[in-house]
Amino acid sequence: MQFYSRKWIMPEDLNPNGSLFGGKLLSWIDAESAIFAMCQLGKDRHLVTKFISEINFVSSGKQGDIIEMGVEVRKIGNTSISLHAVVRNMMTKEVIIDISDIVFVNLGADGKPQAHGYSAESD
Amino acid sequence: MQFYSRKWIMPEDLNPNGSLFGGKLLSWIDAESAIFAMCQLGKDRHLVTKFISEINFVSSGKQGDIIEMGVEVRKIGNTSISLHAVVRNMMTKEVIIDISDIVFVNLGADGKPQAHGYSAESD
Amino acid sequence: MQFYSRKWIMPEDLNPNGSLFGGKLLSWIDAESAIFAMCQLGKDRHLVTKFISEINFVSSGKQGDIIEMGVEVRKIGNTSISLHAVVRNMMTKEVIIDISDIVFVNLGADGKPQAHGYSAESD
Amino acid sequence: MQFYSRKWIMPEDLNPNGSLFGGKLLSWIDAESAIFAMCQLGKDRHLVTKFISEINFVSSGKQGDIIEMGVEVRKIGNTSISLHAVVRNMMTKEVIIDISDIVFVNLGADGKPQAHGYSAESD
Amino acid sequence: MQFYSRKWIMPEDLNPNGSLFGGKLLSWIDAESAIFAMCQLGKDRHLVTKFISEINFVSSGKQGDIIEMGVEVRKIGNTSISLHAVVRNMMTKEVIIDISDIVFVNLGADGKPQAHGYSAESD
Amino acid sequence: MQFYSRKWIMPEDLNPNGSLFGGKLLSWIDAESAIFAMCQLGKDRHLVTKFISEINFVSSGKQGDIIEMGVEVRKIGNTSISLHAVVRNMMTKEVIIDISDIVFVNLGADGKPQAHGYSAESD
Repeated sequence: MQFYSRKWIMPEDLNPNGSLFGGKLLSWIDAESAIFAMCQLGKDRHLVTKFISEINFVSSGKQGDIIEMGVEVRKIGNTSISLHAVVRNMMTKEVIIDISDIVFVNLGADGKPQAHGYSAESD
Repeated sequence: MQFYSRKWIMPEDLNPNGSLFGGKLLSWIDAESAIFAMCQLGKDRHLVTKFISEINFVSSGKQGDIIEMGVEVRKIGNTSISLHAVVRNMMTKEVIIDISDIVFVNLGADGKPQAHGYSAESD
Repeated sequence: MQFYSRKWIMPEDLNPNGSLFGGKLLSWIDAESAIFAMCQLGKDRHLVTKFISEINFVSSGKQGDIIEMGVEVRKIGNTSISLHAVVRNMMTKEVIIDISDIVFVNLGADGKPQAHGYSAESD
Repeated sequence: MQFYSRKWIMPEDLNPNGSLFGGKLLSWIDAESAIFAMCQLGKDRHLVTKFISEINFVSSGKQGDIIEMGVEVRKIGNTSISLHAVVRNMMTKEVIIDISDIVFVNLGADGKPQAHGYSAESD
Repeated sequence: MQFYSRKWIMPEDLNPNGSLFGGKLLSWIDAESAIFAMCQLGKDRHLVTKFISEINFVSSGKQGDIIEMGVEVRKIGNTSISLHAVVRNMMTKEVIIDISDIVFVNLGADGKPQAHGYSAESD
Repeated sequence: MQFYSRKWIMPEDLNPNGSLFGGKLLSWIDAESAIFAMCQLGKDRHLVTKFISEINFVSSGKQGDIIEMGVEVRKIGNTSISLHAVVRNMMTKEVIIDISDIVFVNLGADGKPQAHGYSAESD
């Protein structure tokens, strides 16, 4: 798994308890996964988040921590792509969340799933 | 299930495809669930999101839509609380996401799970 | 009066003195009132804030507080709706601000006030 | 009246109708007035917004408009300062909102109003 | 040089070290300079930032500080305008950054530099 | 040069002309460079942006574009680190900005430059 985007946890990312707000974390990994999906299928696909498998919050983050996000392909279907995503502390490599399955679906002009035209051995 | 917080979807909440950014949605329901958990167990608990069950994105939202968020108790444990959360379009009542299980854990001063001292028949 | 939307006061909502930034509070109640007005008159009205009566900042909020916002109809005119709005601490019920009159006007395609077609006994 | 701070209305400042979100406008003028008050009484005062007189939304703003904010002293009391604030379109000079009275109070360490020690002929 | 826009440094503007995040500072001065350029050449120009000369971060800012931004014309070309910009602490007048040259270019409908039609003695 | 963090350009990142707001771009590359510097010298250094060399805005970005940011070491001094940073379109590889020199300085408890204790052949 390759790790790309990084975040330096700022005061604006904290919850009132002073730790990384879980909603920010989910927001970051959703965007990172969407970017990864577009890298695979092409930017001009109209991809929407369709499914996220269960999420364990293994550890947390605090102000000044640097986190990094990793994504890899799990499976490519006809109209969809399924990804595995991990967020971890960049220094300690401690996992923060590990999501085994984030699925994006390609939509056609009619708003319905449409074949994205990409085939892979993993199909 | 009671529905409380509402959001009017603004331009700043959209993804580049012009629909509600999934990360924002996750961020909103995480905060709403945390608020609900504190209402049950007391604001001075130190609650952290521990687990979110799988999420189906049933429908989406667009600029100008009003959404509402509902949360209810699923189960109260010794150190944790489990909630059921729904986000839906306030006008059409169409469900956007339905999360069957969001678990918050109460942490002690040592950062470890600690009994929150609240008991309920649902235990 | 019904109370709907809630906010958990985050570090990003504070002013440099460490208390809830008044501008955030005004921003939240303006959005909440607009949502309430659309619930009454229909989402497809083009409503704009026209008037806010005087505002007393009775108490303040601090990081970690949960606030709730309540709105009720005060008067419905031909082209407008007038609301009463309250923000209070959800735990203590202490009032933060109480605005006796927020008026929204319905605009037509020409940008001028237009009858919204809703009549109520309170007229 | 002197006009200082300016804003270039960005997509993130719009409401779903595509015009300047009233809540942003209120947030901006609250911050600008607080700055002005500190300029008069000293930055190390602990000033809080105490009162805002009624607000007429005379005109609106749209994406790309430049607005400017003007503030002037209306009255200086023992523990408070009262300001007059105007927001207008910088190009057309058309008034957007005109608030005749924004009052800030100086708080002591005990959280109660405290003399700010500034006297002016306008008292 | 005239100083216009002011900022009160809020918790959301800080980096994890607790001082003003440099990125926010650059964001503010870029917007302020764009506003200034439009004031000179007309709001309906399509101006884009083309060049920023080297930036020395002479001092920093901390929560609660008030800063002010000053901009002046350095040179007006056929298709461009060059500005000198300064950010300083409003109370102490201590310079935070001083940028000797920020250049905006006017673009035509084809996305290429186009004469802005404004001439000045400084040319 | 390695490219790490990526951004999907959202409506909230645009200027009123509908292209990527330059201030956001500068904010992103400043954070990314700070992260990179901490990766080299250790997260617990107190690094501050000290200098940014001139910036040419070679091309721009628009809504939906994906950009990536690359940083590499240029020189490591006793108390400072100098970086080379590039932002480019991830799909087309077109450069958006190329900054030849961003310098961070390590500060001691007294707020003055302090040796960071890291030595490299590039010194």
